[in-house]
Amino acid sequence: MHKVIFDTDPGVDDAMALLFLHHHPEIDLLGITTVFGNASVETTTRNALFLKREWGIDAPVARGEGRTWNPMRNPVDWPVTIHGDDGLGNIDVPETIDLPVDPRPAHRFIIDTVKANPGEVTLIAVGRMSNLAYALKEAPEIAGLVRQVIIMGGAFDVPGNITPAAEANIHGDPEAADVVMTAPWKVVVVGLDVTMRTVMTRKMLADLVTRGGERLKLLSDISQFYIDFYGRHVEDGMVVHDSCACLYLVAPELFATRSGAIRVVAGGIADGQTIQKPDGHAFPPGNWDDIPSQQVCTGIDVDRAMALLRETLVRAA
Amino acid sequence: MHKVIFDTDPGVDDAMALLFLHHHPEIDLLGITTVFGNASVETTTRNALFLKREWGIDAPVARGEGRTWNPMRNPVDWPVTIHGDDGLGNIDVPETIDLPVDPRPAHRFIIDTVKANPGEVTLIAVGRMSNLAYALKEAPEIAGLVRQVIIMGGAFDVPGNITPAAEANIHGDPEAADVVMTAPWKVVVVGLDVTMRTVMTRKMLADLVTRGGERLKLLSDISQFYIDFYGRHVEDGMVVHDSCACLYLVAPELFATRSGAIRVVAGGIADGQTIQKPDGHAFPPGNWDDIPSQQVCTGIDVDRAMALLRETLVRAA
Ligand SMILES: [Ca+2]
Ligand SMILES: [Ca+2]
Repeated sequence: MHKVIFDTDPGVDDAMALLFLHHHPEIDLLGITTVFGNASVETTTRNALFLKREWGIDAPVARGEGRTWNPMRNPVDWPVTIHGDDGLGNIDVPETIDLPVDPRPAHRFIIDTVKANPGEVTLIAVGRMSNLAYALKEAPEIAGLVRQVIIMGGAFDVPGNITPAAEANIHGDPEAADVVMTAPWKVVVVGLDVTMRTVMTRKMLADLVTRGGERLKLLSDISQFYIDFYGRHVEDGMVVHDSCACLYLVAPELFATRSGAIRVVAGGIADGQTIQKPDGHAFPPGNWDDIPSQQVCTGIDVDRAMALLRETLVRAA
Repeated sequence: MHKVIFDTDPGVDDAMALLFLHHHPEIDLLGITTVFGNASVETTTRNALFLKREWGIDAPVARGEGRTWNPMRNPVDWPVTIHGDDGLGNIDVPETIDLPVDPRPAHRFIIDTVKANPGEVTLIAVGRMSNLAYALKEAPEIAGLVRQVIIMGGAFDVPGNITPAAEANIHGDPEAADVVMTAPWKVVVVGLDVTMRTVMTRKMLADLVTRGGERLKLLSDISQFYIDFYGRHVEDGMVVHDSCACLYLVAPELFATRSGAIRVVAGGIADGQTIQKPDGHAFPPGNWDDIPSQQVCTGIDVDRAMALLRETLVRAA
């Protein structure tokens, strides 16, 4: 069993990834930690509670960060044209959900859970990297206790999506992302290099609803607004960004990876860009020295990955 | 005939590119302007005069910039391990060459020559972008009078060579490069994406000496030190970076290009990185808006390009 903490900003593609984690038989979801990004942390926390209730998920929800690592950063507008005003595709999520949140802030929940399961916990982070950076700041020793960190974020050999240089999750808190990428733990980055190739078409989603019932009906309802947005960029459907990080956890053999130290640009026109120094390339002394090598996903077996995603989504939990 | 000003920092691969320009029957070399980079501008100017004398080149030499656009930048060490202490592979270039330099600084030479040949001059820039930026600053109207600017520099979809983010010509004066890339003239950038694939092996070079006589013997002597350096990175031979820009001039059909606005990062860990916003990708308002689209070379027919280079080098001037 893979023990997982899911750090997320639901978020439409976050919702799909959460259902994948909930349904996959080899995943033990220990907790859901929320972060700002697709909406405010108040909204993403409310949305996590809503999905927990609707889908009958046992894992606790811990509310996380609502501010960037560097407090001087200007806040970015919420991407309401992609995820809707409610962060879940404008399906009229109730204003409040009558479920408790964990009393601890997300970064403390992460620290406690990792320490209680040494060497066993995978952190899957599909929002801004703020919670993970705050956890490392408060308890740097967790770096040696985490099994691996799988991140949806970044753009290495392809353009970004929020600027030509940067992907939105990383761009939203670049200083936090640099802390996370350069820490002495095992990081795998699943960025736009692979996620932009993974499209769930309207037709596939409709088929899932037929096969999967109420849970899939909700997922489909949530996703329509996002598909309307992405339909401009890809074949009639949605890019399943966050699910790719979850697919990596259970099927890393479907991905090609490249090893090397990763830094994140902070400030200037490349703000939030992820840059890897591929292992085996020599450079004069510089900013990538003495940093652990991490893995960047550069390839994906799209057909098998999408099949695994679809089959898992329609399983019973 | 292609009228050309060659802006250069000889430099070993610069020397090969210069001989190509001198020998190609459809190129009219109007001038050689020197810039710092592979060595100080004193050394690169001396080297240009040396090559002019040894190879019987008529074009005048105008001495250019020895400082970056932003005077607060720290100077970078000369790459003596690549180009030698004399900038030409440690062949004991005489300390002074008894030939006149043009009385004008390089940027003024560029301005005057472009204005005297409106719409006809191609600038081939294979060192730092400083001279071109100073020319634009003093006479912005030349942007509308230049036929095209072909740059050897930058790294778009591949790692840099001086840092994981940046290529050396651009990294040496990023602010100047940003001025050049964003000006309203036609720019084609021939960067590491294609140049790293173009290797002149020792065997090819020895064959050229047999066929081409004294001029090629000098080129080969100059190149040995550089090959010793590059032999660590590529098949026993040298990457012919600067010649690629000259090949583009006469055989653009050998290259694949991508269109889009280009900016250069100044400062931070990505200092000197070239970033293109590919045309057709939509982004929120940002730093690439309202900038002319330029061409980035993303592919090259290596075999045909190298054949054209070799056949031109062994022609009579
Ligand atoms: Ca997300
Ligand atoms: Ca050069």
